[in-house]
Amino acid sequence: MTQTLPATRPVALAPDLTVGGRDVVLMLGPCSVESYAQTRAIAAVLAAHNLRVIRGGAFKPRTSPHSFQGLGEEGLKILRSVADEFGLLVVSEALGVEHVPLLAEYADIIQVGSRNMQHFPLLWAVGEAEKPVLLKRGFMSTVEEWLQAAEHIATRGNERIILCERGIRTFETATRNTLDVNAIALARQLAPWPVLGDPSHATGRRDLVLPASRSALAAGADGLLVEVHPDPPSALSDAEQAFPLEAVPELLSQARAIAAALGRGVR
Amino acid sequence: MTQTLPATRPVALAPDLTVGGRDVVLMLGPCSVESYAQTRAIAAVLAAHNLRVIRGGAFKPRTSPHSFQGLGEEGLKILRSVADEFGLLVVSEALGVEHVPLLAEYADIIQVGSRNMQHFPLLWAVGEAEKPVLLKRGFMSTVEEWLQAAEHIATRGNERIILCERGIRTFETATRNTLDVNAIALARQLAPWPVLGDPSHATGRRDLVLPASRSALAAGADGLLVEVHPDPPSALSDAEQAFPLEAVPELLSQARAIAAALGRGVR
Amino acid sequence: MTQTLPATRPVALAPDLTVGGRDVVLMLGPCSVESYAQTRAIAAVLAAHNLRVIRGGAFKPRTSPHSFQGLGEEGLKILRSVADEFGLLVVSEALGVEHVPLLAEYADIIQVGSRNMQHFPLLWAVGEAEKPVLLKRGFMSTVEEWLQAAEHIATRGNERIILCERGIRTFETATRNTLDVNAIALARQLAPWPVLGDPSHATGRRDLVLPASRSALAAGADGLLVEVHPDPPSALSDAEQAFPLEAVPELLSQARAIAAALGRGVR
Amino acid sequence: MTQTLPATRPVALAPDLTVGGRDVVLMLGPCSVESYAQTRAIAAVLAAHNLRVIRGGAFKPRTSPHSFQGLGEEGLKILRSVADEFGLLVVSEALGVEHVPLLAEYADIIQVGSRNMQHFPLLWAVGEAEKPVLLKRGFMSTVEEWLQAAEHIATRGNERIILCERGIRTFETATRNTLDVNAIALARQLAPWPVLGDPSHATGRRDLVLPASRSALAAGADGLLVEVHPDPPSALSDAEQAFPLEAVPELLSQARAIAAALGRGVR
Repeated sequence: MTQTLPATRPVALAPDLTVGGRDVVLMLGPCSVESYAQTRAIAAVLAAHNLRVIRGGAFKPRTSPHSFQGLGEEGLKILRSVADEFGLLVVSEALGVEHVPLLAEYADIIQVGSRNMQHFPLLWAVGEAEKPVLLKRGFMSTVEEWLQAAEHIATRGNERIILCERGIRTFETATRNTLDVNAIALARQLAPWPVLGDPSHATGRRDLVLPASRSALAAGADGLLVEVHPDPPSALSDAEQAFPLEAVPELLSQARAIAAALGRGVR
Repeated sequence: MTQTLPATRPVALAPDLTVGGRDVVLMLGPCSVESYAQTRAIAAVLAAHNLRVIRGGAFKPRTSPHSFQGLGEEGLKILRSVADEFGLLVVSEALGVEHVPLLAEYADIIQVGSRNMQHFPLLWAVGEAEKPVLLKRGFMSTVEEWLQAAEHIATRGNERIILCERGIRTFETATRNTLDVNAIALARQLAPWPVLGDPSHATGRRDLVLPASRSALAAGADGLLVEVHPDPPSALSDAEQAFPLEAVPELLSQARAIAAALGRGVR
Repeated sequence: MTQTLPATRPVALAPDLTVGGRDVVLMLGPCSVESYAQTRAIAAVLAAHNLRVIRGGAFKPRTSPHSFQGLGEEGLKILRSVADEFGLLVVSEALGVEHVPLLAEYADIIQVGSRNMQHFPLLWAVGEAEKPVLLKRGFMSTVEEWLQAAEHIATRGNERIILCERGIRTFETATRNTLDVNAIALARQLAPWPVLGDPSHATGRRDLVLPASRSALAAGADGLLVEVHPDPPSALSDAEQAFPLEAVPELLSQARAIAAALGRGVR
Repeated sequence: MTQTLPATRPVALAPDLTVGGRDVVLMLGPCSVESYAQTRAIAAVLAAHNLRVIRGGAFKPRTSPHSFQGLGEEGLKILRSVADEFGLLVVSEALGVEHVPLLAEYADIIQVGSRNMQHFPLLWAVGEAEKPVLLKRGFMSTVEEWLQAAEHIATRGNERIILCERGIRTFETATRNTLDVNAIALARQLAPWPVLGDPSHATGRRDLVLPASRSALAAGADGLLVEVHPDPPSALSDAEQAFPLEAVPELLSQARAIAAALGRGVR
């Protein structure tokens, strides 16, 4: 089956890697960078499967001030070193304006997190950065507000924007959030930017990561952002939603099947 | 790619047609039965594509007392007559306890609507009927409450239950509801009953029916319930979400592609 | 301070008792009628404080089929007998159309519950009954849908309608529901019917019943519907929100203070 | 009627003005500081009624990049100058970390806005400031998350925190947000900090500001934050919810009546 996808303006990440083009792009990695060993173990698996982008948090925005807050710049150094070893690109989050220079130095894609979707000074700062921006949808934000947040970035000059739907807060309590596949389809219709899906935050449960990944891709997502961990129960943050590293082949296989149904490949 | 789907207890609709088995089942038809001609035109298209079930509303639960309330028993007669002509099965909604005998007479599957998901007397009445029941999720109900509503039916003796996720009410206003694909996957894990997706009510927009249909199937849905109309803008109810009859081949083609990716066929 | 309240069409309950007039009306009683002794103990306290209406459930719409479902007609008989002994009026819920005649026989006000707010056959049935109707807002229904549900009743001829805001379902989990005081104020502006507040369901916590009662009255509510119990922890349903019978004097005292600030008395 | 309010740790704003003590404190002012004349006109009315705190936005976090973004530092200078003339205190919002020194210079209370409730770098920065902090609840944040955000401030050393409930995002569309009076009562039970109510954002409609103000105070709020304007329809931001300056006497009169019912005065 061929299908006419809405026209998006692809974001080139490398000479041979584009988000928003024919192929969908998988970005996997730990919620938090916990150690060199953990990060390298994940990177090795990604590289073995020809995946190209590793995600990982160095500055962790935690609801409680008493939770693990990330390794900070040390985490970024680990990510960069491991990524360089395996030829990967890095996506990581800037928690505030003051992190943007650091992220521009160590990462290839700067992430703006869900809680910061309407932190306008940060939007303006990444709007002036020289790196692509991954803008997560606020879990409390409408599609319209999300696209307006992207405009805050674009009007500062940076049009290399990648949107990411990561679930919204609803009355349902069996899942951490509700994956809004309508929003994925709608954002692709209304805006020129590619759209990823994040099945980890959108479900909060590792047993739902596979179906949510399939659903996001089927809705038209241009890629996935997935939290993986070599030993999920021991993860220092978001352990419930960490997808086991050993199951990455199954995730890839299912992603390929859905992508193929839409005439797309997986990178 | 083959994939291990959770074990469901399939519901047999006919000697050669089962919901919750290997193949997904598409149930298409008008929101409201408006006339014999409209209903027959739709049935002819379904039959031409070897689809087996027609859906249609005779008693319409309308928010405002001043809206079109459906043709009543006359609508059921039209559905039955047209279905018999083309060898189709009928699914239609019982608005209250007093409609159950009528539905049991004219329809093959009795639908309990979203607003009635916790109308317990109706659950008990269909629990004593001899026909399979299609139980829509309340747009305000958690997955747990939905499954408990199904238990209200099952404890009265009728275990031929088909669940249907049709979108939940959230803060998002760009779509009528939010299709909860997490819930489709979760219900299939937690309960023995097959689960359909309803992309029409879950989006409220005909331009999102295709991606929502793909997403629901990718999440593991055992079928779809879709509102179609020969001339959507003229529909007497829910015109915005009516999917054009002429685009049914495209819907089928996309459904087949996704189903095939999961090792399933389409009926 | 005097204040201009919007004009409502008061509903007369007895020659000397009106809802929607100058005074606010308190309707207290058990969630479920559990026994004659429990019901009589409550009625005695209400009468001792010159309160005029007892509320109590005979048919309980329970989410799980395995929970206590109420005493049925026996419960209504207990309510009637106790109410007659103490000169009280009875408000109780019709769970379905088939209960309406029974409620019209035993009760003075027929309640339509939150889960049934859009069960149209029930709205039509109470619209033809000879008793005032207490229409609870659906916990996921907009104010507009609520007022349209009331119109479904009114268009059948019964204009003696009392609205009741009982909390809506939101993302907040610390409380069972969210008391929507905006809706109380708005409904009184938009519709001719009196509006009560239900602090029990709106909070789900007995420690919040007092502030929620004050808030509802301050928003302009014409009365309160409150679940009370002689021994809250032993209540057979909704134990967490049962307000202790012994604290009724404090509830009354606080209600009188707020009502007085608005130029109203308490009945 | 006297009533035992939960113990809060009052925040002293001036030698003779405390939030969280016996009296409730009203903080009124424009959404945005638009001009010297507009701000002075409002300040004169506040002073004439012996109110002590003026609120006003200098940096406006606007959803769209094309809306009025505030006067910036110039707005803060206007606020300070007018406040000094009339002996008022100033509360204004820091949009980001980089604004904190400016706010600490010009304002008496630094506000953290609803969209920034989980912008942790800002919480940490105001946690190290020498001024009291007014922390608005995120419009999609639970009470627990709100109190944890306050802890992010307190653990940096600043315990002079004033909470403010400003409405949450729900499915209801007739009002901009839903005033969560349950949360006001709950926050006062669970935390040592005073709690204000913001009837302007919580309703988004000037015709609901009076009942929402009464409700918030009746729930136990220690004060109100209200947007007022000399000519509401001409307001440059949030015109729909601007309360007319000429109606401030009525607001004060109603606030006094409710406060008195709880044994409190109004400052």
